[in-house]
Amino acid sequence: MRNIIGNNLTLTLFGESHNPEIGVVLDGLGAGIKIDEDYISLCLSRRKPNSMIETSRKESDHYRFFSGVFNSCTTGSSIGIIVENENIKSDDYDDISHLARPGHADYTSFIKYHGYNDYRGGGHFSGRLTTPIVIAGAIVKKALEKFNIKIVSHIKQIGNVNDRDFEDFNKDINLVKDQFFPVLDQVQNQMEEEIIKARSEFDSIGGKIQLAIINLPVGLGEPYFSSLESEISKAMFSLGGVKGIEFGLGFGFCSSRGSKVNDSFIYSEGKVITKTNNNGGINGGISNGMPVVFSLAIKPTPSILKTQKTIDFKNGINDVINIKGRHDPCIVRRICVVSEALTALVIGDLLITKYGNDVFIKENLD
Amino acid sequence: MRNIIGNNLTLTLFGESHNPEIGVVLDGLGAGIKIDEDYISLCLSRRKPNSMIETSRKESDHYRFFSGVFNSCTTGSSIGIIVENENIKSDDYDDISHLARPGHADYTSFIKYHGYNDYRGGGHFSGRLTTPIVIAGAIVKKALEKFNIKIVSHIKQIGNVNDRDFEDFNKDINLVKDQFFPVLDQVQNQMEEEIIKARSEFDSIGGKIQLAIINLPVGLGEPYFSSLESEISKAMFSLGGVKGIEFGLGFGFCSSRGSKVNDSFIYSEGKVITKTNNNGGINGGISNGMPVVFSLAIKPTPSILKTQKTIDFKNGINDVINIKGRHDPCIVRRICVVSEALTALVIGDLLITKYGNDVFIKENLD
Amino acid sequence: MRNIIGNNLTLTLFGESHNPEIGVVLDGLGAGIKIDEDYISLCLSRRKPNSMIETSRKESDHYRFFSGVFNSCTTGSSIGIIVENENIKSDDYDDISHLARPGHADYTSFIKYHGYNDYRGGGHFSGRLTTPIVIAGAIVKKALEKFNIKIVSHIKQIGNVNDRDFEDFNKDINLVKDQFFPVLDQVQNQMEEEIIKARSEFDSIGGKIQLAIINLPVGLGEPYFSSLESEISKAMFSLGGVKGIEFGLGFGFCSSRGSKVNDSFIYSEGKVITKTNNNGGINGGISNGMPVVFSLAIKPTPSILKTQKTIDFKNGINDVINIKGRHDPCIVRRICVVSEALTALVIGDLLITKYGNDVFIKENLD
Amino acid sequence: MRNIIGNNLTLTLFGESHNPEIGVVLDGLGAGIKIDEDYISLCLSRRKPNSMIETSRKESDHYRFFSGVFNSCTTGSSIGIIVENENIKSDDYDDISHLARPGHADYTSFIKYHGYNDYRGGGHFSGRLTTPIVIAGAIVKKALEKFNIKIVSHIKQIGNVNDRDFEDFNKDINLVKDQFFPVLDQVQNQMEEEIIKARSEFDSIGGKIQLAIINLPVGLGEPYFSSLESEISKAMFSLGGVKGIEFGLGFGFCSSRGSKVNDSFIYSEGKVITKTNNNGGINGGISNGMPVVFSLAIKPTPSILKTQKTIDFKNGINDVINIKGRHDPCIVRRICVVSEALTALVIGDLLITKYGNDVFIKENLD
Repeated sequence: MRNIIGNNLTLTLFGESHNPEIGVVLDGLGAGIKIDEDYISLCLSRRKPNSMIETSRKESDHYRFFSGVFNSCTTGSSIGIIVENENIKSDDYDDISHLARPGHADYTSFIKYHGYNDYRGGGHFSGRLTTPIVIAGAIVKKALEKFNIKIVSHIKQIGNVNDRDFEDFNKDINLVKDQFFPVLDQVQNQMEEEIIKARSEFDSIGGKIQLAIINLPVGLGEPYFSSLESEISKAMFSLGGVKGIEFGLGFGFCSSRGSKVNDSFIYSEGKVITKTNNNGGINGGISNGMPVVFSLAIKPTPSILKTQKTIDFKNGINDVINIKGRHDPCIVRRICVVSEALTALVIGDLLITKYGNDVFIKENLD
Repeated sequence: MRNIIGNNLTLTLFGESHNPEIGVVLDGLGAGIKIDEDYISLCLSRRKPNSMIETSRKESDHYRFFSGVFNSCTTGSSIGIIVENENIKSDDYDDISHLARPGHADYTSFIKYHGYNDYRGGGHFSGRLTTPIVIAGAIVKKALEKFNIKIVSHIKQIGNVNDRDFEDFNKDINLVKDQFFPVLDQVQNQMEEEIIKARSEFDSIGGKIQLAIINLPVGLGEPYFSSLESEISKAMFSLGGVKGIEFGLGFGFCSSRGSKVNDSFIYSEGKVITKTNNNGGINGGISNGMPVVFSLAIKPTPSILKTQKTIDFKNGINDVINIKGRHDPCIVRRICVVSEALTALVIGDLLITKYGNDVFIKENLD
Repeated sequence: MRNIIGNNLTLTLFGESHNPEIGVVLDGLGAGIKIDEDYISLCLSRRKPNSMIETSRKESDHYRFFSGVFNSCTTGSSIGIIVENENIKSDDYDDISHLARPGHADYTSFIKYHGYNDYRGGGHFSGRLTTPIVIAGAIVKKALEKFNIKIVSHIKQIGNVNDRDFEDFNKDINLVKDQFFPVLDQVQNQMEEEIIKARSEFDSIGGKIQLAIINLPVGLGEPYFSSLESEISKAMFSLGGVKGIEFGLGFGFCSSRGSKVNDSFIYSEGKVITKTNNNGGINGGISNGMPVVFSLAIKPTPSILKTQKTIDFKNGINDVINIKGRHDPCIVRRICVVSEALTALVIGDLLITKYGNDVFIKENLD
Repeated sequence: MRNIIGNNLTLTLFGESHNPEIGVVLDGLGAGIKIDEDYISLCLSRRKPNSMIETSRKESDHYRFFSGVFNSCTTGSSIGIIVENENIKSDDYDDISHLARPGHADYTSFIKYHGYNDYRGGGHFSGRLTTPIVIAGAIVKKALEKFNIKIVSHIKQIGNVNDRDFEDFNKDINLVKDQFFPVLDQVQNQMEEEIIKARSEFDSIGGKIQLAIINLPVGLGEPYFSSLESEISKAMFSLGGVKGIEFGLGFGFCSSRGSKVNDSFIYSEGKVITKTNNNGGINGGISNGMPVVFSLAIKPTPSILKTQKTIDFKNGINDVINIKGRHDPCIVRRICVVSEALTALVIGDLLITKYGNDVFIKENLD
């Protein structure tokens, strides 16, 4: 199961950067979910580059449903989603197809695929393939709202600029939900400057994203191999730029005492809550009803315009590489909506597993 | 797929803390692998508590193979591994079965299983269930050595005491491989003091483990959903105490520039290596031949002997809890061998997927 | 996924004929299902040989639950089921371990497992392993009765003796449900004579089983790859003796006209039924609410006491074999309860997939 | 896993009859397989109707690869295959969308999908969706030829006209391989007359297909749940018209004696063969090196031009239906190439599982 994720809600991915079309098949969502094209457009717009600080590759992201949608509702069969690639410039890649871009998959894919891989624009490894994932995620995110489940993210860090953590979810969610540049504090300008500075120095910069899932029912996730952390982390590390994940206090636990970080349960207004949420809403792999909070470490985009030492793997010699093309000096902002989409797929899958195939339509019909 | 992990090499887990026996079924390993009982014993001994600083629950960890082993070799059919539970003190739990131990799964499992779960000693959630995982992992780790693949770990941090990172793998591996208290620097005493101090204050303490997989062939892992990071992280978050994972530089990427952390490829003595290894041996989800290095954030064990506020979920009231029983003030050291075992299962699975069912026997036969 | 079946309700199988114990792990059934030991005993008794006409190997079939059962109810975690092997006579096999019993898996397993397989008593291939499957199936069959779903079978044919087809399900089900020798007409004596005759001639005899699933809700199964026929047939062909399956009219369709065998729908007492049931309760891979009816072709047991020509695969020469040991001259009757068990697992899985994890407990709680 | 089949070689299906495009994603085949478009065309032509005796719906079956093919070879990433639908006449269906065509999935899908399914032309249930399956199968069949593995089929029966069984595979395979109307004896005219007769009476007719897989290595398939019979039957019952399957002697075993049907092993010219092949090349679920032979029962197409009694499920009343549109009076011939394609997918999956991901390219490279 290589290009497939999910058990009861599955996503199959296909495509390469420089072919005319890419897509996904989303299967198992159930019949009767209304497709909200405005919300899909909104999510796609969040994935598009801000050409001031990001790549200048412009894609209109035209998409269509091949199947599984009829009269604007899901039919219950597999949903084929196709996105057109328009702005293809393969020439940028032809003269470096023998060189391993440092930090990229050129070398590993050359070996793995015995040289048969489509190297143009990163081929199957291209971030372009996250576009149909965003569309699938938008459909599922919208469906989750029937349960009042919300998935949000904000840019926690770019280089040396930090946003604050989530505090009061009721307020904070509205600050960042579906925003183009989601931050809780007034740090957008500083962050953009950090990116512009990196770009002006022909360099790139990393960052951190914090996500939250609100209003999850108690009981999602399993002990051990299908823990909520396992399922979410598996999905998040699908993204090439993600190199770390932590739930709740995460690496902050390493130097902590149990007495300080155990989250005490209390009844509050008839509901069970925990006073603190260091465990990020998960106990023993299972959601406890508190917000599920986790952060992702995003590495700086490896494509930089500086000259770099590397190998020519076709000729077996050391060489240098000068990467041309259009690249993001920082991919963090654009990953926000993609990581939300993957999170939605995980949560949708777990809800369908728990409540059955028609969980979303049932909500519609009621 | 709740208690099952793996695709071509699968592990099925069953058992509860206070039943007479627990076990796993390991399937897909192939025929003709010699079972090394000494190595299994060594691995089990590393999971046992050091009663000076850890729990005083003593288990002889008697195990037997139900199936799949004949004349000391694997037969090719599913391997049933059973471990006896001996030192059971259920009384410690009877009077708190209505109280949610903070940081534990009591509340989530009560809701998830509608009160039918076996609550004694944590039931199915008990760390005791990692014992048969260690046995399965020992078999696979040994099989991996046919490929010269080694999986090691060391305690990177306990509270405020840090070990150094891996540096020269050729030397460092021998320092920590299969050690009871694996550290690279002379920090064992300090770390033990940190633990003893926590225990003496009826408290617990967290830490960090760093793992490395050496001599992986290039090409393991897939782009996207079955990336090497995805598969490893899914396995690691099977462990209740793990709350974060980072590969290579991990969260250190967040404030880094691409020019500083891209790992340049070079040919060195005819082999492709990278000068640095910030990506932790993985590019685009695929192993690049460098050591795969990752770290785990381990939370302090939630069972502490201090009085804690919590809820009585059977009676729906707020209450306090005093946990009795025998508990580890720090679980970090004991998780080392368990996380190695799960890593071995992931790598074994990927090797079988890449090279076929008989990958390990072929090595034997050659 | 070799020794595992199911998606949301999984069964993992392990064991060999001549080891002390064999077992299964049943996972995903949900919490709160009452274990009915009397019903398990009844099902086990149906699998036991009638020593007059079948094997004289006597097994008391002592079993125990390792896990997943607490206070006589399922806990929601994986259920480990162990059955003891008592009546082991490995000596019967030692002197033929180099000979391929015709119709058996000796040769294929010798090649597949490179000679490492446990050959004693058929090893992992032994029909003995169906014992824990019967136990798991008894639990699920009982759980299905909450939905009024019943799974029954009868011996449709032994050699040249035929039973009639199901006709009036309301009456017929009671005739055969959970019977030791389930037949609809008075053909038991004739069938037993057919078996005794084969045995007296040191031979064996085949037969046919017809199964029915009653009161399935409309909508189980999927178009294409997870059609109800696909899922059932995959499970049935798990049994070594099964060499054919047909649904409804089955091979009778080959010479039929559509106008004669299309099942017309009608409203009858407010319910949708079909006038005939040639499609065996399945349209387009999905249950239509009519009884799901299918038949299995069972080959004669290959172990016969006649001298047979075969190969000595260790020495690479042609040879003859004289099989000793205790063998069934006809396995058809004993497969009835096993095929019901596997059918129950398939249906249980589909119900959990459709209605969610807690489908069975919900029924309990209502 | 609803629209997905396979473990290491997976096929994901999507599409509806009356949308502009349908397709599959084929994943896991490995890099470096040459795409043979002529062979794909040949396979597609076998699926096309012979308008004299079959449907007059004409489709040019234009297809394209979205992904996974570069420079006419597979790249190793997922292969997206799209086929255009051209000849769509939805009007034929609008006035019967409330009526359950007997033998079809109209009623079951209406209930399963709560009325949201795309009913036009059978929607997702249409035989039209087998077109991309044929393309995927053609790629895999061609790849299998590297191992000299051949998959062939012939029409064993149409109504009351029978073809003979396979006898001498060396000769027989050449008679039927890739033929438009594959029969071993001179029965094409008689079979066509049988079809024409049914059509002239506004009726349809069933039949039987026999398939053979030649030159399989010993050792494919697993005991129990992934037996070769299990995997093949699961795939075959994906096809709506298939209602029975038998391996080797199949239902002929029911009245047979072991002494007559056990297949004796012998060494013949240094190779292990069986004198007879009643077990259809499979012992204990595992291929034994003999041809794997199995037959499929195909029901008469349920769409007939006679008036039929049925229900109006939207209005809850009994009614009659007159089906218009273009339909095959017999689907048997067209299913030949589709069942070969699905068989190829199963065998390809098992070979990849046994020999590893690059099994096909290795053959190329050698």
